[in-house]
Amino acid sequence: MKKPKWVVEKEQSKRKAEAETVWLFGLHAVRDALSNPAREKLRLIVTKNAADKLDEAIAESGMTPEIVDPRKFSAPIDPQSVHQGAALEVKPLNWGSLSDRAIADDDRPQRLILLDRVTDPHNVGAILRSAEVFGALAVIGTRHHSAPETGALAKTASGALERQPYLRMRNLADTINELQQMGYLVLGLDGEAEQSIEQALDGKRDLPVALVLGAEGPGLRQKTKDTVDQLVKIDFTGGFGSLNVSNAAAVALYASLPH
Amino acid sequence: MKKPKWVVEKEQSKRKAEAETVWLFGLHAVRDALSNPAREKLRLIVTKNAADKLDEAIAESGMTPEIVDPRKFSAPIDPQSVHQGAALEVKPLNWGSLSDRAIADDDRPQRLILLDRVTDPHNVGAILRSAEVFGALAVIGTRHHSAPETGALAKTASGALERQPYLRMRNLADTINELQQMGYLVLGLDGEAEQSIEQALDGKRDLPVALVLGAEGPGLRQKTKDTVDQLVKIDFTGGFGSLNVSNAAAVALYASLPH
Repeated sequence: MKKPKWVVEKEQSKRKAEAETVWLFGLHAVRDALSNPAREKLRLIVTKNAADKLDEAIAESGMTPEIVDPRKFSAPIDPQSVHQGAALEVKPLNWGSLSDRAIADDDRPQRLILLDRVTDPHNVGAILRSAEVFGALAVIGTRHHSAPETGALAKTASGALERQPYLRMRNLADTINELQQMGYLVLGLDGEAEQSIEQALDGKRDLPVALVLGAEGPGLRQKTKDTVDQLVKIDFTGGFGSLNVSNAAAVALYASLPH
Repeated sequence: MKKPKWVVEKEQSKRKAEAETVWLFGLHAVRDALSNPAREKLRLIVTKNAADKLDEAIAESGMTPEIVDPRKFSAPIDPQSVHQGAALEVKPLNWGSLSDRAIADDDRPQRLILLDRVTDPHNVGAILRSAEVFGALAVIGTRHHSAPETGALAKTASGALERQPYLRMRNLADTINELQQMGYLVLGLDGEAEQSIEQALDGKRDLPVALVLGAEGPGLRQKTKDTVDQLVKIDFTGGFGSLNVSNAAAVALYASLPH
């Protein structure tokens, strides 16, 4: 019997995802990935000079580097990339399911950052850094229309990509519903909102809180606005201009923590 | 009588500064500069398509655009730049002296951001945006070793470059001393500091406050650390990783405001 079309498509999509690899580049990003035991590593292309600098991390990883001439750096990355003579092909990290990530296994405040179609890898990279610094449990984007794990994202994340869970879910509204069922208060950032984060969280800082941010310009989608518990703005804003999305995420996370 | 060498050099330096121009690019940055009466505008190079989109701003500016073929976009900017068919040659803005800028002419909290050798134009652009949103009086860098006003900075600043004072002073330690004499409390951001911004400002939020941030990696120079009133860290940080400098500036500014 012939397999139904949807089964074939699902299998194709699974095979495609399994075949997907990412080229990380730059000394910092490559070193952090080499040192991450959870990271599946495939090929390491380095100049002699970079190999010397990555000496310890290479030994730790057990990989055999392919040493290349700096003038013929052959890794399949954007020629404009500042690769510093080091490129590493890896599989994207598998951070497990939403329920694995949304519950803390220590006593830190439970915080999540949700991104509604934020596609710029530099912004997502900076958000991963801030999320790590402020102890957020995870950054959650959508499978489509959000920045995939790429070399540019890894470079901006400055190591945080290896340590900070970054999940990409099929549907953001479903994810918000699931979090609400887990007891999360889900706040959507919107410059037009009446209450500030501080006001919305007054007396509620012990709750698990998810902060949802949209891309610059379009902001949150209507469906997202309709699904969150409340729309909130960042205090002291509202005059001219608007925050870059990574700055907004950092301030929102800071403002949400118990103090 | 022959002029002394230092006089000749000073005159040359002045002529060079006067001759200095910047090419802004991208629809947003060009539109905002065209609409800024304080901005001295020299040449406007646009495609027909961009000219249509900038119609109102061009009329407002009184400039005669040079219309070019999109395939032969001739403005002297980095060919990788996302110029969207619009480039405008301008003079850097003149924001006057430190004492002009460090005193508010309204009743907002007096806040300044000082940058100790932050050279990345994207970070400085994002900092200008945050400074504007949170109502800081100015962003202050150093004449050397800090990001000059460029097209890339203007694009990241997303309009804020036209409105948010950005001064570049000869010497940062002298600037800090001058601010202290004006009654400013000058706080240097340092991950190793003992007190947080919140602690240092407890009961002192009505004071004028300047926040000094260093570049990622090197941080504040020793001379800067020795000159500020106190070193402070951002609350809730201290685990793994570090904030991107523009995120650190946004959070620090937010944390410093009276609430």
